[in-house]
Amino acid sequence: MNGKVLKFDIEKKMNGTLGRAGVIETAHGKIETPAFVTVGTKATVKALTPEMVLELGAQVVLANTYHLYLQPGEDALCDAGGLHKFMNWNGPTMTDSGGFQAFSLGVAFGTSVSKIAKDGEDVEREFGAEELKMAKVDEDGVTFKSVIDGSEHKFTPEKSIEIQHNIGADMIFAFDECTAPTADYEYQREAMERTHRWAQRSLDAHKKFNLEKRFPNKQQGLLGIVQGGRFEDLRKESAEFIGGMDFDGFGIGGSFNKEDMGTAVAWVNEILPEDKPRHLLGIGEPLDLFMGVENGCDLFDCVAPTRMARNGTLHTNDGRINMLNAKFVKDFSPIDKECECYTCKNYTCAYLSHLFRAKEMLASTLASIHNLYFTINLVKKIRQSILDERFGEYKEEFLTKYYKTK
Amino acid sequence: MNGKVLKFDIEKKMNGTLGRAGVIETAHGKIETPAFVTVGTKATVKALTPEMVLELGAQVVLANTYHLYLQPGEDALCDAGGLHKFMNWNGPTMTDSGGFQAFSLGVAFGTSVSKIAKDGEDVEREFGAEELKMAKVDEDGVTFKSVIDGSEHKFTPEKSIEIQHNIGADMIFAFDECTAPTADYEYQREAMERTHRWAQRSLDAHKKFNLEKRFPNKQQGLLGIVQGGRFEDLRKESAEFIGGMDFDGFGIGGSFNKEDMGTAVAWVNEILPEDKPRHLLGIGEPLDLFMGVENGCDLFDCVAPTRMARNGTLHTNDGRINMLNAKFVKDFSPIDKECECYTCKNYTCAYLSHLFRAKEMLASTLASIHNLYFTINLVKKIRQSILDERFGEYKEEFLTKYYKTK
Repeated sequence: MNGKVLKFDIEKKMNGTLGRAGVIETAHGKIETPAFVTVGTKATVKALTPEMVLELGAQVVLANTYHLYLQPGEDALCDAGGLHKFMNWNGPTMTDSGGFQAFSLGVAFGTSVSKIAKDGEDVEREFGAEELKMAKVDEDGVTFKSVIDGSEHKFTPEKSIEIQHNIGADMIFAFDECTAPTADYEYQREAMERTHRWAQRSLDAHKKFNLEKRFPNKQQGLLGIVQGGRFEDLRKESAEFIGGMDFDGFGIGGSFNKEDMGTAVAWVNEILPEDKPRHLLGIGEPLDLFMGVENGCDLFDCVAPTRMARNGTLHTNDGRINMLNAKFVKDFSPIDKECECYTCKNYTCAYLSHLFRAKEMLASTLASIHNLYFTINLVKKIRQSILDERFGEYKEEFLTKYYKTK
Repeated sequence: MNGKVLKFDIEKKMNGTLGRAGVIETAHGKIETPAFVTVGTKATVKALTPEMVLELGAQVVLANTYHLYLQPGEDALCDAGGLHKFMNWNGPTMTDSGGFQAFSLGVAFGTSVSKIAKDGEDVEREFGAEELKMAKVDEDGVTFKSVIDGSEHKFTPEKSIEIQHNIGADMIFAFDECTAPTADYEYQREAMERTHRWAQRSLDAHKKFNLEKRFPNKQQGLLGIVQGGRFEDLRKESAEFIGGMDFDGFGIGGSFNKEDMGTAVAWVNEILPEDKPRHLLGIGEPLDLFMGVENGCDLFDCVAPTRMARNGTLHTNDGRINMLNAKFVKDFSPIDKECECYTCKNYTCAYLSHLFRAKEMLASTLASIHNLYFTINLVKKIRQSILDERFGEYKEEFLTKYYKTK
């Protein structure tokens, strides 16, 4: 494979930053980058059909190894002919390694508080003593209890890669240890070094499984994950180590302090090879998307647009609004007059307000379409601003309006 | 108006039965009859976009006056420009009178047990003493408490018609009293006579509101409702009385014993004027659809297809199946190999099984598409069998397979 499964061409680099616009080619089509990856946790983008996902402009869908492993099980995905056929999405796909969920359901974080939960089902929460017992990390992998029935399971790098080969997404991730942002230096170093050993085991397993006939997609690219928490020396060491390996691309994992996330991402991307795509995991807030692009990231994913949508919170160019606010009951204008999405072209705030109050499923569908369109289209506009050499102006213009401040 | 708002042409009559195939013309398009009317209780067909509803073959959507009156309120519908604009459905629409829900939330049935609940939200249930207090009927109308906040409201024939003018559907219903199937003869007569007086008041209100400028749709047809329970003399008397009035069509309301529903419907349709459409309210079971058509009904509505779908119960030509059955976990065939719906053309039972187990919203969407397509298409095939003079053969063929009997 040797990094040739995913073709990545850089179309244009930004002056004075690490940002770039490019194109990734997968077995199921191209992704123009920077791009926002739509999350389809359980092999479905919540409340949407694949046609809706395509129509709103999504280029790539990311499903969740942990959830699909527990249900319906990797064999069902494999027997179906892989993720694409199973869920009726013919475009590019990704799976994460499952590690994040295994860890975030109970942890050896060295702390009882985690705020890193970002997947489709978990929300920010504190882990109590009971939950701390639910997952255990050792050199071999992580042992955890199922969220569905409490049964015990173990993910190792080899197991994660095998499951991801059964699922058959176009881009898959090495198995890594996800640490809490509050973990101390010693623990972050220990976890990072373990992640590096797991990266090699993931790569070896990937090469081995590529030789086997049983899997549905023989054109999978494997992305290594850089860890190291908020520590500059660890991040740089991890970028050197993972960047030097035979991956098809890279993920930047773990949590950062919101304020200096840009700096930490830059530490990493200054070191990672320029000619392979980089995915900043779990990021979807407008401000963070500009930051990620500016600092050299090509892909982003986050459940926030759809989760917010299901709660009635919607993006507009003038910031966020919530459809349950009384003022929308008789507001017969669209969510955002400038928006070209299906929802804004066909429905009023009054109708959405009614659907949310009546707890109708169509509320989630229409709101998810809008928020995904908004986020995906924002990254597309950022991309265009790079091509047009006006990223700085566009960033200033958008953020000033969205956050009503500079 | 004088019955000219809804044009109704009979294309073909069946020999030896009351059945007929025809076309209703409304201000928002034609309905080829017999037709199954899709229920969109709260101005949304649950879990579906209007485009999906159109694509699966629906010709007409029925919304619920009771629910829309309580939320978002009739004024919101009127200010939106009416139901069509509010919900983004440009085809023909209907509203019921709201009476059924007002009554079924507590009643003067003369019994504490009701099994007539058929609307979008209510399920078959027993009414306790507490609920009996919730609705009260008198000559003027029915007083009831809101399911949303317990506040007290009153529907009269005039109020029901005013709300329906505000909502602006193409076909609306006179306000009637819905009795329990267990009500005795005396109560049924009393209720029927009241329904007849309310029919006249509904018609008078309709003519009055047609002269006012404030309503969004000036082309509404009003359908009178025949009652009389399971008693032959009452049904015939009601058909004579309501059939002799200046309505644009008719509804047949109330409950029947399942076994002799056909007989009771025939009593009515032998009397009702042949040149106006007839709607059999709340019926959607395949056997009952054949019965209704054979006995002279043109329109049917029922929440069963979508409610069953949300519970995982799906129609096939070989009867019903439930997607939660373990055998579907690895069944990579469609729900029904003969079915041409979007769901059957693109998804397997294994995928639907996964979505239902994962409680994903897309499960309801895909299952509702299938069950509505199945039911709507069944009535279309019944229609075609009338045109082709093979209703009897088609009925035999379908029912033998579906019910595995005869």
